[in-house]
Amino acid sequence: MALQAYKDLKVRLEKIHDLDRARAVLQWDAWTMMPPGGAEVRAEQVATLERVYHERLTDPDIGRRLEELRSYEETLPPDSDEASLLRITRQDYEKALRVPAGLRAQMARAASLAEHVWEEARARSNFSFFLPHLEEIVALKRRYIECFSDAEHPYDPLLDDFEPGLTTSEVDPVLQGLKGALLPLAAAIADRVDRVDDSCLFGRFPVARQRQLVHGILRQLPYESSSWRVDEAAHPFSTGFCSTDIRITTHYRESFIAPGIFSALHEFGHGLYDGGIDSALERTALSHPSSLGMHESQSRMWENLIGRSREFWSRFYPAVAASFPEQFDGIEMEEFYRAVNKVQPSRIRIDADEVTYNLHVILRYELEREIFEEKLALRDLPEAWNARSREYLGIDIRNDAEGVLQDVHWSEGLFGYFPTYSLGNILSAQFWNALRADIPAVSAQIEEGDFAPLRAWLREKIHRHGRKLTAAEAVEWVTGGPIDPEPYVTYLKRKMGSIYGLDLSTA
Amino acid sequence: MALQAYKDLKVRLEKIHDLDRARAVLQWDAWTMMPPGGAEVRAEQVATLERVYHERLTDPDIGRRLEELRSYEETLPPDSDEASLLRITRQDYEKALRVPAGLRAQMARAASLAEHVWEEARARSNFSFFLPHLEEIVALKRRYIECFSDAEHPYDPLLDDFEPGLTTSEVDPVLQGLKGALLPLAAAIADRVDRVDDSCLFGRFPVARQRQLVHGILRQLPYESSSWRVDEAAHPFSTGFCSTDIRITTHYRESFIAPGIFSALHEFGHGLYDGGIDSALERTALSHPSSLGMHESQSRMWENLIGRSREFWSRFYPAVAASFPEQFDGIEMEEFYRAVNKVQPSRIRIDADEVTYNLHVILRYELEREIFEEKLALRDLPEAWNARSREYLGIDIRNDAEGVLQDVHWSEGLFGYFPTYSLGNILSAQFWNALRADIPAVSAQIEEGDFAPLRAWLREKIHRHGRKLTAAEAVEWVTGGPIDPEPYVTYLKRKMGSIYGLDLSTA
Repeated sequence: MALQAYKDLKVRLEKIHDLDRARAVLQWDAWTMMPPGGAEVRAEQVATLERVYHERLTDPDIGRRLEELRSYEETLPPDSDEASLLRITRQDYEKALRVPAGLRAQMARAASLAEHVWEEARARSNFSFFLPHLEEIVALKRRYIECFSDAEHPYDPLLDDFEPGLTTSEVDPVLQGLKGALLPLAAAIADRVDRVDDSCLFGRFPVARQRQLVHGILRQLPYESSSWRVDEAAHPFSTGFCSTDIRITTHYRESFIAPGIFSALHEFGHGLYDGGIDSALERTALSHPSSLGMHESQSRMWENLIGRSREFWSRFYPAVAASFPEQFDGIEMEEFYRAVNKVQPSRIRIDADEVTYNLHVILRYELEREIFEEKLALRDLPEAWNARSREYLGIDIRNDAEGVLQDVHWSEGLFGYFPTYSLGNILSAQFWNALRADIPAVSAQIEEGDFAPLRAWLREKIHRHGRKLTAAEAVEWVTGGPIDPEPYVTYLKRKMGSIYGLDLSTA
Repeated sequence: MALQAYKDLKVRLEKIHDLDRARAVLQWDAWTMMPPGGAEVRAEQVATLERVYHERLTDPDIGRRLEELRSYEETLPPDSDEASLLRITRQDYEKALRVPAGLRAQMARAASLAEHVWEEARARSNFSFFLPHLEEIVALKRRYIECFSDAEHPYDPLLDDFEPGLTTSEVDPVLQGLKGALLPLAAAIADRVDRVDDSCLFGRFPVARQRQLVHGILRQLPYESSSWRVDEAAHPFSTGFCSTDIRITTHYRESFIAPGIFSALHEFGHGLYDGGIDSALERTALSHPSSLGMHESQSRMWENLIGRSREFWSRFYPAVAASFPEQFDGIEMEEFYRAVNKVQPSRIRIDADEVTYNLHVILRYELEREIFEEKLALRDLPEAWNARSREYLGIDIRNDAEGVLQDVHWSEGLFGYFPTYSLGNILSAQFWNALRADIPAVSAQIEEGDFAPLRAWLREKIHRHGRKLTAAEAVEWVTGGPIDPEPYVTYLKRKMGSIYGLDLSTA
């Protein structure tokens, strides 16, 4: 009886999930394929799907069924698929009930429209052009926050959308601690910035050849063309419509070879996570990574811990050099390895090195907090952005395009999202240490192009669980301890110490 | 009051329409972009959208509101946007109510799955591999037909899905009459088949250069890159998500230049119709062509009446010759013009010439009728197909891939669709005659690449109305008479008579 009731609910939840993934298809299309003329109506279509999804999820009958299944749930192991689906659905249901369907639809519509305005504003480097849309988005977010009147801090409901269960009071000390460790590290390296010459990464790299190179590298990774696509988007992203339909994107620049490669590796890490979730969880709310920090731990692992390692380029540098012989003639692999690891404060977050990247993130996190604490007016955002860029990165921002307009996130209404980038870095090093303890040969395997053991470990330890474990639970399960920035700071000190000839063990 | 009630209903209908267009995005993606691994879950997603659309359209509250607005509707001119939306919505509502949501979802799911099986069956040239899926689809169609117990003929409900208002007893004499005119015409030309040499169309045409050529031609037509995309699909199709987001496809063959060009022109005609519908009808059920025959009248007009005319190639042949100099060295435009108009029975419908094309269509229409009249078992379909190919086209079918498996339609559950291709041909000539009477200079304008007057005429007379007029009403409005195959037969006799040196005026 209870089993049948569970099965009935699951069928219903699968259809609700279909609506969510249909929305994801429409957004993927909007960001990769859609001609600009489609934007206005597409915003309506996305908003409608969002609304119908929300209506169906918050149908009181779902609540009744969840209640009826409580005693069944208690008979099951908490980590069983069934108990997990009931637990997570209840969380989603209760959270969704807080937010009126109309507000959700308005948020979706405002975001869809603002994205295209943001694109134009960035092209014109004109923040004022974007400001009215940002004001609309933030006003809607404030109404969203009001739906969670029991939150300790106005930023908590935003953070919870991306990092379920984690609060501002938990995240803030972690990020401030990271900032405290990174500012002197960046300063120590800054004195020796000329020790690394990355000029080989700049020049002329025809996009068609970059594309061929990147596709060639991906095909040697656990990338299956029968269930993946790689396309191009102004702001690279990844998404998945099921575990065997994974879409990643990258963005090539003709004058700079790094972004096309490292965005692809970054999104590959995301895609591998989406594709590694247990197929038994398909078409349910469990078939997603457990949080954006967890998701980012996988993308940053592939982008940096693997993708900026000596063993990775020992395997793939010959293909790079062969693709652009006029650029890499006489350049040894070691020079390329050092170049892609150069630490140098820059204006654009997605181009930033591993050390200063987190300073970009913390800058955005602090501005977001101040906006929602009503300490910072949106019209003053460019000035605040530029001032903090000078303070943390020693960088003068020359125009809005390379400053406050550089990221797509706010145009999409993604506030509370940025902190997950730094959490991802922290988690990536914790997981990597555990992985190396279990697979001591991993470096040699990467050098040989044997990614199977690495993939199997990631799938077993992290990917397959989907949303069954929270970030904190996953870290506990894999490492036996709590979220801890120390391994990440140690990793940076060791790698950068070696590259820059610094003893950073006491820095 | 009534006005407000109308506006409220319209907002609701817009959201229902969004669900339909979201499904269209998912299908476009499935046919152009999706990796094969996505097929199974995509079928579920499409079925879910179809189901939710149907549920919302058949909500009894829609019926109540339509009833309440009946007296308001009667105060309006029947061709006003408001009266038309109420009339068409009532038709859709009443028709949808006949079909249980579960059956609709099953049909959608079966079609989504069968498409991919069909692709594999065609690749293997193995009808038996596809047969179980076809049986499932036909069994569901029979249940669909049963929902319309008042239909005069079992084929009527199928036809009505594509050609609203037209019945089998109306269409059958038109198609049998057309067959009667075309069989002797094809026979007369067959005696002189060697008068046209089309060997210049065969050889080696690298796809990248074909793509560049076709995109170059499209850019000189009323094709706007800000609201159109052209992609590639196994079976070319077109779709639109709004009047400013038009997606067309084509399919290139390296050894034969015609299909890539003429599929693109065909789909361009469809796209121009979708994009020309009055923007006041956006996001409503009126924002579609009024029938598939009407839709096809536009695609066939661009493919044939324009795209296979001497004036069109007078403008564009130089670009073809320049794209493939090794193929077209020493070939004059006139020879190319004759080649693309060669009449020769062939196995594949989409490669057929203008004369025999309709025999392909009538063959399918007759088989469909016999299937639903229970006169033909599905397992006997290949044999029946091959026998009739011999009879009508004088062609021996050597395997299933070039016979019964050649079209995607049945795998998608599209029965009742084929007759609209021949109706489209008939309508295209009727509209073209009216257009030439209004714009005597149209041939010269095409030769000069000035498509603006032609586009303006099509938009004014045909496109802008969307579903406000039925096919019969549109023909009446444009030509002052009924649907009539005579202009099409006359057009063929005149053009082919000139090319083949035949006096066909009495044939």
